[in-house]
Amino acid sequence: MVIYGVHPVEEALRGRRKVHRIWATERGSWEGNVTVVSAEEIAERAETDAHQGVAALVDPYPYVDEAELLAVEAPFLVALDEVTDPQNLGAIARTAEGVGATGLIIPERRSAEVTPAVCKASAGAVEHLKIARVRNLADFLAEAKEKGCWVYGAAAGSKTSYDQPDYGGGVVAVLGAEGKGLRPRVASMCDDLVSLPLLGQVESLNVSATAAVLLYRILQFRLDAST
Amino acid sequence: MVIYGVHPVEEALRGRRKVHRIWATERGSWEGNVTVVSAEEIAERAETDAHQGVAALVDPYPYVDEAELLAVEAPFLVALDEVTDPQNLGAIARTAEGVGATGLIIPERRSAEVTPAVCKASAGAVEHLKIARVRNLADFLAEAKEKGCWVYGAAAGSKTSYDQPDYGGGVVAVLGAEGKGLRPRVASMCDDLVSLPLLGQVESLNVSATAAVLLYRILQFRLDAST
Repeated sequence: MVIYGVHPVEEALRGRRKVHRIWATERGSWEGNVTVVSAEEIAERAETDAHQGVAALVDPYPYVDEAELLAVEAPFLVALDEVTDPQNLGAIARTAEGVGATGLIIPERRSAEVTPAVCKASAGAVEHLKIARVRNLADFLAEAKEKGCWVYGAAAGSKTSYDQPDYGGGVVAVLGAEGKGLRPRVASMCDDLVSLPLLGQVESLNVSATAAVLLYRILQFRLDAST
Repeated sequence: MVIYGVHPVEEALRGRRKVHRIWATERGSWEGNVTVVSAEEIAERAETDAHQGVAALVDPYPYVDEAELLAVEAPFLVALDEVTDPQNLGAIARTAEGVGATGLIIPERRSAEVTPAVCKASAGAVEHLKIARVRNLADFLAEAKEKGCWVYGAAAGSKTSYDQPDYGGGVVAVLGAEGKGLRPRVASMCDDLVSLPLLGQVESLNVSATAAVLLYRILQFRLDAST
């Protein structure tokens, strides 16, 4: 696929997939097989004007196997239930990488996948984060629980505040689709549902804002527990 | 101006500005002066296809005066230093409204303003949040400090972790532009600079993710302090 943007190409170069060639408006400090071309040619190859003067031909996105994500000790996983907006998937991947999450799980169907737009929205974080696609998210959560993980779903209005649970050990944070939240079967697989306090008039946050708050709370819990 | 989208129009109807008329593809439960028209006509009036079947002619956005934001006791303010992306301004406004912030401050120049796209990105939260435009952000922060506020700027890599400060009393949280961070004069006005831990390879989060984490930390501090 052809990815674009400064950060996405930079991170691909130090990531896991092969970068076959780069097109850039200036030679700059790009490594590898670089061709200097016009902005118009890059726009054509990237199929967008948001390329920031660079695009790269790279291997398909290297999804990992879900079993790999459950094989680590005390995994810190993030699961997305039918999040379809590439901006949200990218933003959440960037935050997940930032908190040191050991993996991100997305369903195979009715979900955004890791497209060039998602690479861009994640500022290239997807090159370092392990992402698995699963056939059925509820089944994956059941498997995670069998392996000893605690599963927490974000659900507006639920009784438990996001800052109350013990987030030590293996943890899966589950976030639902924009506007729809978690599907019933996915919610029923959660050990607890947590919510963020909302003091204003608006009834929910953007899913990537909810993810940022919840993931940093989990990270802070784990950092505090380890000192 | 013409705003569009279900939440933006709903929130405008229960917000502070006058809604002169509504165009919708279905009568539905819209109140007021509603005309049922085609999706094409709405797209033309809204100048976008992202209208979700409804648009409304409303008064210009009712910015408040900065003095009003400093007149409340123990204000909880959010200031944005040249955030130019409408998506980020909208997302941050939505989160700020959610945490019960008493106001949002943006500079008059080199900043996104409250356009219909920002209304949409905020899911209508801008109709309830008080937003002021200031000529000079550093001067505003100086004034806020004179009035007894503590000013905290988010700056990647700074020594103080975002979870350490005492966020009681009057607080201003300052967030910088995407990619550039806080300008030096703005940073120098901050009582402290705070950072979020980053455990991965990527060097920063999206400004709206940083805002969500910092604002919820401030809210949590204030909730914990009041119990």
